[in-house]
Amino acid sequence: MSEHPQMQDIAIGIEADGIREEFDSLGKVEVPADRYWGAQTQRSLHHFSIGRDHMAPEIHHAYGIVKKACAIVNREAGRLEDWKAEAIIRAAGEVTEGKLDDHFPLFVWQTGSGTQTNMNVNEVIANRAIQLLGGELGSQSPVGPNDDVNMGQSSNDTFPTAMHIAAKIAIDDDLLPALRELTSAIETKADSWMDVVKTGRTHLQDAVPVTVGQEWHGWAGQLRDAIETLSDSSEKLLELALGGTAVGTGLNAPEGFSKETAAQIAELTGKPFITAPNKFAAQGGLDAMVKASGGLRAVAVVLMKLADDVRWLASGPRLGLGELQIPPNEPGSSIMPGKVNPTQSEALMMIAIQVMANDQAVAMGGSRGNLQLNVMRPVVIDNVLRSTRILADGATNFCKFCIEGTELNRKRIDGDVERSLMLVTALAPEIGYNAAAEIAKDAAKTGDTLREAALRSGKVTEDEYDRIIRPETMTGEGLAGA
Amino acid sequence: MSEHPQMQDIAIGIEADGIREEFDSLGKVEVPADRYWGAQTQRSLHHFSIGRDHMAPEIHHAYGIVKKACAIVNREAGRLEDWKAEAIIRAAGEVTEGKLDDHFPLFVWQTGSGTQTNMNVNEVIANRAIQLLGGELGSQSPVGPNDDVNMGQSSNDTFPTAMHIAAKIAIDDDLLPALRELTSAIETKADSWMDVVKTGRTHLQDAVPVTVGQEWHGWAGQLRDAIETLSDSSEKLLELALGGTAVGTGLNAPEGFSKETAAQIAELTGKPFITAPNKFAAQGGLDAMVKASGGLRAVAVVLMKLADDVRWLASGPRLGLGELQIPPNEPGSSIMPGKVNPTQSEALMMIAIQVMANDQAVAMGGSRGNLQLNVMRPVVIDNVLRSTRILADGATNFCKFCIEGTELNRKRIDGDVERSLMLVTALAPEIGYNAAAEIAKDAAKTGDTLREAALRSGKVTEDEYDRIIRPETMTGEGLAGA
Amino acid sequence: MSEHPQMQDIAIGIEADGIREEFDSLGKVEVPADRYWGAQTQRSLHHFSIGRDHMAPEIHHAYGIVKKACAIVNREAGRLEDWKAEAIIRAAGEVTEGKLDDHFPLFVWQTGSGTQTNMNVNEVIANRAIQLLGGELGSQSPVGPNDDVNMGQSSNDTFPTAMHIAAKIAIDDDLLPALRELTSAIETKADSWMDVVKTGRTHLQDAVPVTVGQEWHGWAGQLRDAIETLSDSSEKLLELALGGTAVGTGLNAPEGFSKETAAQIAELTGKPFITAPNKFAAQGGLDAMVKASGGLRAVAVVLMKLADDVRWLASGPRLGLGELQIPPNEPGSSIMPGKVNPTQSEALMMIAIQVMANDQAVAMGGSRGNLQLNVMRPVVIDNVLRSTRILADGATNFCKFCIEGTELNRKRIDGDVERSLMLVTALAPEIGYNAAAEIAKDAAKTGDTLREAALRSGKVTEDEYDRIIRPETMTGEGLAGA
Amino acid sequence: MSEHPQMQDIAIGIEADGIREEFDSLGKVEVPADRYWGAQTQRSLHHFSIGRDHMAPEIHHAYGIVKKACAIVNREAGRLEDWKAEAIIRAAGEVTEGKLDDHFPLFVWQTGSGTQTNMNVNEVIANRAIQLLGGELGSQSPVGPNDDVNMGQSSNDTFPTAMHIAAKIAIDDDLLPALRELTSAIETKADSWMDVVKTGRTHLQDAVPVTVGQEWHGWAGQLRDAIETLSDSSEKLLELALGGTAVGTGLNAPEGFSKETAAQIAELTGKPFITAPNKFAAQGGLDAMVKASGGLRAVAVVLMKLADDVRWLASGPRLGLGELQIPPNEPGSSIMPGKVNPTQSEALMMIAIQVMANDQAVAMGGSRGNLQLNVMRPVVIDNVLRSTRILADGATNFCKFCIEGTELNRKRIDGDVERSLMLVTALAPEIGYNAAAEIAKDAAKTGDTLREAALRSGKVTEDEYDRIIRPETMTGEGLAGA
Repeated sequence: MSEHPQMQDIAIGIEADGIREEFDSLGKVEVPADRYWGAQTQRSLHHFSIGRDHMAPEIHHAYGIVKKACAIVNREAGRLEDWKAEAIIRAAGEVTEGKLDDHFPLFVWQTGSGTQTNMNVNEVIANRAIQLLGGELGSQSPVGPNDDVNMGQSSNDTFPTAMHIAAKIAIDDDLLPALRELTSAIETKADSWMDVVKTGRTHLQDAVPVTVGQEWHGWAGQLRDAIETLSDSSEKLLELALGGTAVGTGLNAPEGFSKETAAQIAELTGKPFITAPNKFAAQGGLDAMVKASGGLRAVAVVLMKLADDVRWLASGPRLGLGELQIPPNEPGSSIMPGKVNPTQSEALMMIAIQVMANDQAVAMGGSRGNLQLNVMRPVVIDNVLRSTRILADGATNFCKFCIEGTELNRKRIDGDVERSLMLVTALAPEIGYNAAAEIAKDAAKTGDTLREAALRSGKVTEDEYDRIIRPETMTGEGLAGA
Repeated sequence: MSEHPQMQDIAIGIEADGIREEFDSLGKVEVPADRYWGAQTQRSLHHFSIGRDHMAPEIHHAYGIVKKACAIVNREAGRLEDWKAEAIIRAAGEVTEGKLDDHFPLFVWQTGSGTQTNMNVNEVIANRAIQLLGGELGSQSPVGPNDDVNMGQSSNDTFPTAMHIAAKIAIDDDLLPALRELTSAIETKADSWMDVVKTGRTHLQDAVPVTVGQEWHGWAGQLRDAIETLSDSSEKLLELALGGTAVGTGLNAPEGFSKETAAQIAELTGKPFITAPNKFAAQGGLDAMVKASGGLRAVAVVLMKLADDVRWLASGPRLGLGELQIPPNEPGSSIMPGKVNPTQSEALMMIAIQVMANDQAVAMGGSRGNLQLNVMRPVVIDNVLRSTRILADGATNFCKFCIEGTELNRKRIDGDVERSLMLVTALAPEIGYNAAAEIAKDAAKTGDTLREAALRSGKVTEDEYDRIIRPETMTGEGLAGA
Repeated sequence: MSEHPQMQDIAIGIEADGIREEFDSLGKVEVPADRYWGAQTQRSLHHFSIGRDHMAPEIHHAYGIVKKACAIVNREAGRLEDWKAEAIIRAAGEVTEGKLDDHFPLFVWQTGSGTQTNMNVNEVIANRAIQLLGGELGSQSPVGPNDDVNMGQSSNDTFPTAMHIAAKIAIDDDLLPALRELTSAIETKADSWMDVVKTGRTHLQDAVPVTVGQEWHGWAGQLRDAIETLSDSSEKLLELALGGTAVGTGLNAPEGFSKETAAQIAELTGKPFITAPNKFAAQGGLDAMVKASGGLRAVAVVLMKLADDVRWLASGPRLGLGELQIPPNEPGSSIMPGKVNPTQSEALMMIAIQVMANDQAVAMGGSRGNLQLNVMRPVVIDNVLRSTRILADGATNFCKFCIEGTELNRKRIDGDVERSLMLVTALAPEIGYNAAAEIAKDAAKTGDTLREAALRSGKVTEDEYDRIIRPETMTGEGLAGA
Repeated sequence: MSEHPQMQDIAIGIEADGIREEFDSLGKVEVPADRYWGAQTQRSLHHFSIGRDHMAPEIHHAYGIVKKACAIVNREAGRLEDWKAEAIIRAAGEVTEGKLDDHFPLFVWQTGSGTQTNMNVNEVIANRAIQLLGGELGSQSPVGPNDDVNMGQSSNDTFPTAMHIAAKIAIDDDLLPALRELTSAIETKADSWMDVVKTGRTHLQDAVPVTVGQEWHGWAGQLRDAIETLSDSSEKLLELALGGTAVGTGLNAPEGFSKETAAQIAELTGKPFITAPNKFAAQGGLDAMVKASGGLRAVAVVLMKLADDVRWLASGPRLGLGELQIPPNEPGSSIMPGKVNPTQSEALMMIAIQVMANDQAVAMGGSRGNLQLNVMRPVVIDNVLRSTRILADGATNFCKFCIEGTELNRKRIDGDVERSLMLVTALAPEIGYNAAAEIAKDAAKTGDTLREAALRSGKVTEDEYDRIIRPETMTGEGLAGA
């Protein structure tokens, strides 16, 4: 005969109208009857309905993993009865899978420790577990949000743990693949255009030749470096605060809790999470987030140049640089017929700006820790996740709707190379810098071709000129310079 | 006999399933049949599904005003037939009232001119007007999104116009009242505590006395100044680009269009909007937005100090400064019973950080104009509106849930004043800076009271001490110093 | 018979080698014998030799005004004997005139209240006054740095007062004139080119025509607005904290000191300084500096676009936009002969970036006040003064070495207008947006002229085309749009 | 018989008054006769006297290494005659050693490629070499600034190379050691206080106990991580652009030049510099600098918390937290006798702010590359070097003048622990969260000790209380939490 509640396979959802009473240590609170959340979530909604910025779902998805890992560890240690643990584990899994997203209504602008979101998670899991176990919602029995779901934990260690998990997953699984795909697409184009000679430009001024492939590989090289930077910068997210509880000492958590829960989280996520060796550093600061945000910023800086270069190279169609033909995805103008605008570049540049600004928020937040806690956590994680998201989507769209469809305007590129006065540079080692400069100035002044001016100068013969001034030999080999 | 379509009073909504065909100059596009938007909106959705940041509804609400004003002016000039204008005006009004919010699905990260949002507005108004006039959705007849709704306009002048209207309304009608209410609440408290003497603190160190009222009036004074700064900084938003069309010259708009539409917008909004005297400045830059954002930033800077001061003054309950008792709105800790945290301060500080960061995005966006257009508009308006919103809500909540319920811990305040070594400052003019310093050091070292150390020094008699060291006379009068 | 020391006309300078002993309340300190500074300055040098960032001379120049004004007011009230006041006043004047610049060695990174710089000023003035009165340097007699020079003052009120004076003078007397001169130079050019038609550009893409004058007046209009913004933003600097002493209450300062010293400062500077009505706001925050910095930032944002536009319009000489010919001030390249680079633009853009970043420092500093004092003052004033200085010099140089010498490349400009496909926009009202778009696309595809494509389309006759497509009539009138 | 000039051992210095004529490709220029610089340096001085920000000496010191390495490689390849190479090498060495610092007058705000500083270096080395070889200054013979000193080089590849060398040396040799020393000093203190129990604080509110050692190790842990972050972030600086010449292709540089010069630089500096594998990325962007700056920012964020925590823990002496006694390095107040202020903390916080702002400048600069060149180099390197410098000096001073002299106020710390209501947390697992909360609230209300309230509650016996509530057992073991 069973002495404890049996978990039943009840579908998600509460069939109820109106309100339900919930309670916490401050007393009773009415919540919408069809929601799983409890008293503290409701209090937060009352006191912190600010703007339209809700906690990103990635946070409670990650929190589900934290709660599941803790329940597993607590069960294995015998602190949490099997039947209770299983209900919590199932509910936590549903949280992670996004099935309970409608029950996480809180705003970013709340308590700086993330306590209210932790309680939101605790309450939803508790009530869902109660439902699964046939109990009464709001009774905190047989599963209590604090005593059972939060067992051995504090907001102060679980929230940064969820932050790290959420950010690491978003960076690894969403952003980095998107960046790699964009980079590969650029490299494919670059390789195919490795021999197309074009005019280089420095200070926006005509300079000596490069190939289109070199230019595109320049972007790709920057991106590869940025990917590496981001990847390295997000490694510290693998260290988790869990087990530090309220102030880092681990008070009220059992011995070994740090390591065991970290191992569980590693198993659940397939990522090598470990416990942070110094919980006082991990809870008093947000340094791993600041570092990761710096990596996001590095990506933004590179994307800004890429997007800006592409739109300038595509400028025209006739009166700009006009080297690239980007895809006409939409009518460009509501007033000027036939206009094609570099809208993907513009979107990506705006994203880069936003990410650079978000990064400032992260750094400011990171610099505002006090003693055993940094209470700027929600603003920090919100900016990190937002940056990650828009970078990932922005890179994907830029790749798909701009890079992949971009073609060269060979007529323009080829003609421009011929007209470039900077080809004169190749004459300098032969006739001297000053004589070469005179030829360039003469051609600029008269509007003649460089060849005409060079021959007129008497410094070079026709044969010499044609031997020396060959753009295709001026671009060197590959990417590594001389 | 009527020669033109009659407008009918048809409720908002399209009874249709599946998809509908729409077209633009690039060809046909399928849109959801129950949505009013057309081809260009759908193209944007396809190419720019980036993150979760949708254009704020305030933008299309403001755009409705622009479209309405233009229709009125075009009708009055005889360019737009009455029946057509009326349908447009009604639809535009519905847009402004928020009744069509579900038909504006676009993202912030789109074309930098806002063209796609302009077209979203044009398309929704056109289709809604077509519906009202009994036409066929998607036919662009009898009301065309470009020819009729966008008549005499360009995205390049309408989008910044809508930006200005949206931002001005949000600042004037939401944020400034919230800030004034918060300031008044602080002043009310300040007035009632004008005679409560407490220890001042400089460098976080005990300093000479102030009154609680002076301290609170300090915050209020900063807020009053910030309100003035914001108010002044947002004045430039009253100048509208409308009438500049594509590049500022007003091509394809009729003479007088600038002034007449600005006058209409002024009438529709009840705010003294005027036409910008220099359309090239108004469209090539975003300077009025940068300026307004600077005003928002000024507010954030002040709120940061206020929130930080309050939480430190409320720190404790026993081992902090402990002067203020803030309302315990929620259980503070998931692990430590009985803890009350300064959560409203924390939320407000995070908001301040976000606003400061958003302001950077605005400035970077503002600095990236090129030639006749700045194409960083969506990121700029999004940050300005977001900052405005969270400041308004944050200030309101901080007022309601923190300031209004804050009480003094008189026992602590009174006791602290007595213990302050810095009362010695009042002795300096009598016995000299150095002798006074010796007394303070002696008291600090021995732990004795200042009085004990002073008398022991032999520099003052008991009578002198009691006459001179009277905290209540050391706080001066009012707020203006000596 | 004179009972008091007589001031003698002794030239600045101390004829001494080695070291001199000075003292303060912590004891004796050795200082270089040929310097006027005293013990506290020396202590600061010892503890705060950080980097190479010295307090800007503008700060002690302004501080000289503060000390002079206080001495005058103290003398008039009979608190300071005439002979002593006169020596202080003379020494303070020398400080302001820059004659004692070598005696202010302190670094920016010091106490956050600026106390050490206040003491540097007090000590130098005291010793210089002692010298003038025939006393012994380092004796603090007959003029004491604290008792006499600092009479009725605190660092907490004098330092922000000096900050305001220094910043206001720098903005009003250096920066604003430089900006006005730049703007006038642009307007002069603009006026002379008001009828030169060129292609407009939006999204970097060819757009409908504008005139060169309109484009330049666009920049000038942005600058005029920025000048106004800066001017308004710096008005709050006129409010002075002096008279608040240590915590804002004015303790140890005589009644009326605030107003009287502000009036003196107004007279000494010729600027309408007044006393701040709320000393707690003035000393607890740095809001007037944050506001002024926002004004500097507004200028930077505008200069960024100006400089960027100029360099792009001057890009080439052959393969860029090539509309402007900027002065070749120096050889552009150490390797490419004959290259002319837009170096003035580049310098100005870097200045703009620095100012935008400095502004962040100011805002962060401004947000870090605590209770009765904001101790981030040195970093704030340093950034404000640095921004002011580089903006002023940068604007002056850009005006003199770029704008004034810039000429038009009429051949390029005129040819480009003819080739612009966007002239088709003028056909849209006649033949419809879509038909016009077809013509533009056809010309783009074939490379033919717009005229050829238009006539080929059959939508317009030769006469119609030549009547409608006249760039010079497409630019409208003046700056205000339609 | 020698056919070439013999190098003589001539001391640095030019014995001449007035002016000397120099020339470049634009013509003749007069320079001060006692300076080694030439025409282009003088032109830059004329056109770019902006502010007071001179190029940091670290840059030309590093540039000396570049020039020396190139001369060695050119000599070995037979491109540069031995006697000429030796003179260049000697002069370049003198530049690096700082012996020619007075000959580098240029400003930060100049051409964005750093060309003018490259030419300053070329000119000074050329003239110094000419002097050593007995030639005529200004003759460019027998050593030419472009042809000989700049052989195989461009500003576009040498300037970023010098940037990397300068930044890497400053970070590795100045900043990292300073940070390590500070960290060690903190750890030494931490170890000695590992058993001193104090009250923890979260949300600024009294929380459960930690030890002083744990708190200090928290800071140290953050610093160790920041050191690692900075170290990793500066690794990319080891990749050098040299060999890319004008646009990355290596035009006019001999094959192998990249690798050979990088190897020479590695040898000269003792650091593992290598040639950048992708010169187009290395010259078009400034990503390695942006990354390194992110590392500096990470340090700043951590130092901010450290400095802020220290000053709050030292706040008082009586009416603050009062746990730490920091050294009284100077009289704290010009008006309040006996005041000791946390000035080292304040300086460090201002430094942190400046570094965070500088980092924004670097990021903005980094995002403004165009095509083959980023012309925001001077502003970027200036900010990176400035940040490095003030962080290094700031950390050193903070260590020496604050951390090392800090002592505990044991009386306060011990007393506070006893008074902390949060000790109640240890009761929660025994009597339940709610019952524990009631006891804490009761004590808070009555002002009684926790013990009194607990016994009054009837929930625990005296024996139980004394067994459970033992702060020293509540702090756990070490740093890793539970």
